[in-house]
Amino acid sequence: MKGAVLYGPRDVRFEERDAPTVIKPTDAVIRISATCVCGSDLWPYRGINVVTRPTPMGHEYCGIVEEVGSAVTKVKAGQFVIGSFFASDNTCPNCRAGYQSSCQHAELVVGAQAPLLRVPLADGTLVATPDIPPYDLIPSLLALSDVMGTGWFAAAAADVKPGKTVAVVGDGAVGLLGILSARQMGAGRIIAMSRHESRQKLAREFGATDIVTGRGDEGVARIRDLTDGIGADSVLECVGTQESMLQAIRSTRRGGHVGYVGVPHGVELSGQELFFAHVRLHGGPAPVRRYLPELIGMVWDWKINPGKVFDLTLPLDQVAEGYRAMDERRAIKTLLRP
Amino acid sequence: MKGAVLYGPRDVRFEERDAPTVIKPTDAVIRISATCVCGSDLWPYRGINVVTRPTPMGHEYCGIVEEVGSAVTKVKAGQFVIGSFFASDNTCPNCRAGYQSSCQHAELVVGAQAPLLRVPLADGTLVATPDIPPYDLIPSLLALSDVMGTGWFAAAAADVKPGKTVAVVGDGAVGLLGILSARQMGAGRIIAMSRHESRQKLAREFGATDIVTGRGDEGVARIRDLTDGIGADSVLECVGTQESMLQAIRSTRRGGHVGYVGVPHGVELSGQELFFAHVRLHGGPAPVRRYLPELIGMVWDWKINPGKVFDLTLPLDQVAEGYRAMDERRAIKTLLRP
Repeated sequence: MKGAVLYGPRDVRFEERDAPTVIKPTDAVIRISATCVCGSDLWPYRGINVVTRPTPMGHEYCGIVEEVGSAVTKVKAGQFVIGSFFASDNTCPNCRAGYQSSCQHAELVVGAQAPLLRVPLADGTLVATPDIPPYDLIPSLLALSDVMGTGWFAAAAADVKPGKTVAVVGDGAVGLLGILSARQMGAGRIIAMSRHESRQKLAREFGATDIVTGRGDEGVARIRDLTDGIGADSVLECVGTQESMLQAIRSTRRGGHVGYVGVPHGVELSGQELFFAHVRLHGGPAPVRRYLPELIGMVWDWKINPGKVFDLTLPLDQVAEGYRAMDERRAIKTLLRP
Repeated sequence: MKGAVLYGPRDVRFEERDAPTVIKPTDAVIRISATCVCGSDLWPYRGINVVTRPTPMGHEYCGIVEEVGSAVTKVKAGQFVIGSFFASDNTCPNCRAGYQSSCQHAELVVGAQAPLLRVPLADGTLVATPDIPPYDLIPSLLALSDVMGTGWFAAAAADVKPGKTVAVVGDGAVGLLGILSARQMGAGRIIAMSRHESRQKLAREFGATDIVTGRGDEGVARIRDLTDGIGADSVLECVGTQESMLQAIRSTRRGGHVGYVGVPHGVELSGQELFFAHVRLHGGPAPVRRYLPELIGMVWDWKINPGKVFDLTLPLDQVAEGYRAMDERRAIKTLLRP
């Protein structure tokens, strides 16, 4: 089969790889219905995370189970399934506490930008949909594999509650779905920080009530203006840079919550600043598995449509263009069809 | 009058100062019944925080109202009162959210190691006891002015709940009262991290069920041993160093809470480490004012006896010896009587 492999900065190739097979009795192999490019794929694509050897890419996936190992009992061949980028046993104490992405036996799922994918710990990782989904539901189901679950976790970690004021730092797919999540959780006001017109439009469609275009201190000042000088109750950090993290902390009211899901790159927090900010911090790699059953239900009933973040759909063999479009911010997120 | 003034490292003098008076209509002047030396006073005493000029010391206090300004309506001359080290108006949005130590009009109270003290924003800062307290209740009431409220906030920020497993980093007065607080909040198991026998004894008296003597990675490993490899549900950080903060974060289970109240000195947190730790962080200068009414009630009814942390009582004119004893760890905390 052919799949996406990253060789170095801006060098993604669609090339022949061994087709994955069941290796351990707890594995499943699935035939990918749709996959996509993640904002976090851009870190190695841009050379910020260095790849030292050709690396199969992709960790967002949904599709039909092709084969399961002998120990797999909860999913079976022919089912349509969605899983997280972290495979988890879903039985260890961390999983039971709802932190499947910190499973004591967690394994990263890699190589999803391909027609077939091996998923370890299938019983704890994959969740089947009620039936084979209609074609036009697939983008929204695919989104649950990472971005939607991550946006949802950001909102949950930021303790979004009915009537509260929420600010969202970052207008990538995760930030936009953080807005959708906050709306679903009943936020009264949702301030999106975005300077890109097409993203502002989607932000409003997902539930943003205000747009702030300023960044850094200017953005913080604007959030304070909009909140009687106090700051927002809940702030979602969906970028992962020092600037975005400080912007999130400084935009939060005393006693308010920062939910951070942007993978930190070069972030160092001063203990003194955190101490006097009086905010609550929670975040990390989203425990997507925790939310899959609930979110699948919402998508299945057409209550939410997170698939709207895919503003570019390409056949899988054009994966390199999918990366380029996101790198150049011509696309919010690229869906790939094998 | 004579009060304590810090001139430089390990140079505390008891010397003549102007007696404080009502300056603003919102001020009160109180006659100190008891004051004490704070762990945080040791930072400038040891020269870690540099004092650039002679500095009146002390921010923990209780006593009888001597005089109030014309705008003060909630306390009156003759009442016995306790206040926080941060004066607060108790009406601004931050105060109403329960963060009086981040009051928009906050002022530090200084110079409490003296017979008389000016307290700004008296209406929002001072809370009167039901009556003039008996002599032997005064140490516990004094403790409410800072250490007890700070230990209580640490436990609240760490979300201590009935039946939960709690670990406490730091065996100073705040850490010890964090143990007492966790016990009051119904913790099932309380692990004190302490290597000093006299402090271990008080820790057990306040409710510690286990003692861990190791520090750093060794202490973390021991906490994990005691919690089936998972970490504690709630960890109270009561020191403020890089080592203690990392020890607290690494001792916490995924999804668990760190409540940090040690004033950070040289603490820098790696965004990456925090991200993958999956913990919840909350802390800062304790909003002591929030807890005063409840804690006064508990002391008044002899339900808690936080005054036990004072293991040295001196007349105020021996304040220098009070600092020395704490600096050399001969005393946990020094009470001073004018």
